[in-house]
Amino acid sequence: MQSSRNVILFIAMSLDGYIATPNDSLDFLSVVEQEGEDYGYGAFVQGIDTVILGRKTYDKVMTLVSEFPHANKNTYIITRTPREAIGSVQFYTGGLTELVSGLKQQPGKDIFVDGGAETVHAMLQGGLIDEFYISVIPILLGDGIRLFKPGFPETNLTLISAKNFEKGLTQLHYKRS
Amino acid sequence: MQSSRNVILFIAMSLDGYIATPNDSLDFLSVVEQEGEDYGYGAFVQGIDTVILGRKTYDKVMTLVSEFPHANKNTYIITRTPREAIGSVQFYTGGLTELVSGLKQQPGKDIFVDGGAETVHAMLQGGLIDEFYISVIPILLGDGIRLFKPGFPETNLTLISAKNFEKGLTQLHYKRS
Repeated sequence: MQSSRNVILFIAMSLDGYIATPNDSLDFLSVVEQEGEDYGYGAFVQGIDTVILGRKTYDKVMTLVSEFPHANKNTYIITRTPREAIGSVQFYTGGLTELVSGLKQQPGKDIFVDGGAETVHAMLQGGLIDEFYISVIPILLGDGIRLFKPGFPETNLTLISAKNFEKGLTQLHYKRS
Repeated sequence: MQSSRNVILFIAMSLDGYIATPNDSLDFLSVVEQEGEDYGYGAFVQGIDTVILGRKTYDKVMTLVSEFPHANKNTYIITRTPREAIGSVQFYTGGLTELVSGLKQQPGKDIFVDGGAETVHAMLQGGLIDEFYISVIPILLGDGIRLFKPGFPETNLTLISAKNFEKGLTQLHYKRS
C-alpha cells in the first residue's frame, strides 16, 4: 500500500562508516560542532511525529538526559523485553514490518528511524526505510560500531541532494529507488 | 620530510562502504555509467606517475584486460611472493612505509593508491595516505568487500570538495588534516 508517510533514517557516520567508537563514544561529532548550525535536524524533526529507536540506544540516551528528547512524539523502542510505557514512549516487542505497515495505514507525519545499528539493520532487512539522510563526518575512526552491518538485500537509491557544510560535513539525502 | 608528492586514494564505494560484492563483482558501478562522464578519473591520472596496487587486485585486473592499464607509470604491486618485473610493473615485497618514503624523496608526480582493500588497510595503518577521493555510488549492496577494514589509527580529515553528478554519484575529496 502506498502511504504518504515515509520512514526516514537521519544519522551521522564517519567516512569509514561508524556511528560510534568501539566504546560507544560520540565525541568525534565534535569536529563538526558549530554555533547555530544543526545540519537540518530541527527542520527534519518538524516533519516527523513518530520515532523508532533501538532499546540499547534509548538506554544510552537516557543516561545522558533527564527527559527523553522525543517525549512529544509517538515513540517505539524496539526491544525483546516488555516494559511499561512511559507517556508516549512504548516498548515494542513485535515485528518491525507489522509496526511500519500499521503506522503507514494511519494518517500522520513521517517516521524517524533514530538508530542504533541493530534497529537500522533490522529495518534494512525488511526493506522498510524509504529515505536516508547520512551526514558524513570528515574523520576516519579506524574502528567502532558500524552503521551498516552486512546481511540485507541490495537496495538501489536515488540521490535527492548532497550538501556541504563549512566544517566539512557532507549530508547525503537518498530515497529508495 | 615534506614532499610535494601526495599519496592519493581514488576509489568508488557503495553507500554502505563496499568496493565489490562478496564474489568480487563490480557490476554495481553500472548504475552510474554515463557516456562521456569519467568522474574526474582522466584528469586525476594526468597528475600521477606512480601506482601502488595490491597483488590480488592486480591479478583480477589482468583477467579482464590484455595490457595493464598503467603500463606507462611506475607501478608497485604489493605482494608477499616475489615475481619478475614486467616492464615498469614491479612486484614489491618490502614495507609500505619504506616504499612511500623512498618515493617521496624522489621528484615526481603524485602517487595513486589503486586498491584493493588489503593494500588500503596497510596504507592506513601506516598513516601513508595524504588525500582521498571517495566516489559514493547510490546503492546499498548489503554485503561485500569493505573499503575500510577495522584496525587503523583515527585520522582527521579536511573536506576539500564534494561534487554531485547526474547519475547520483557523490565524489568526496579529503586531505589528511
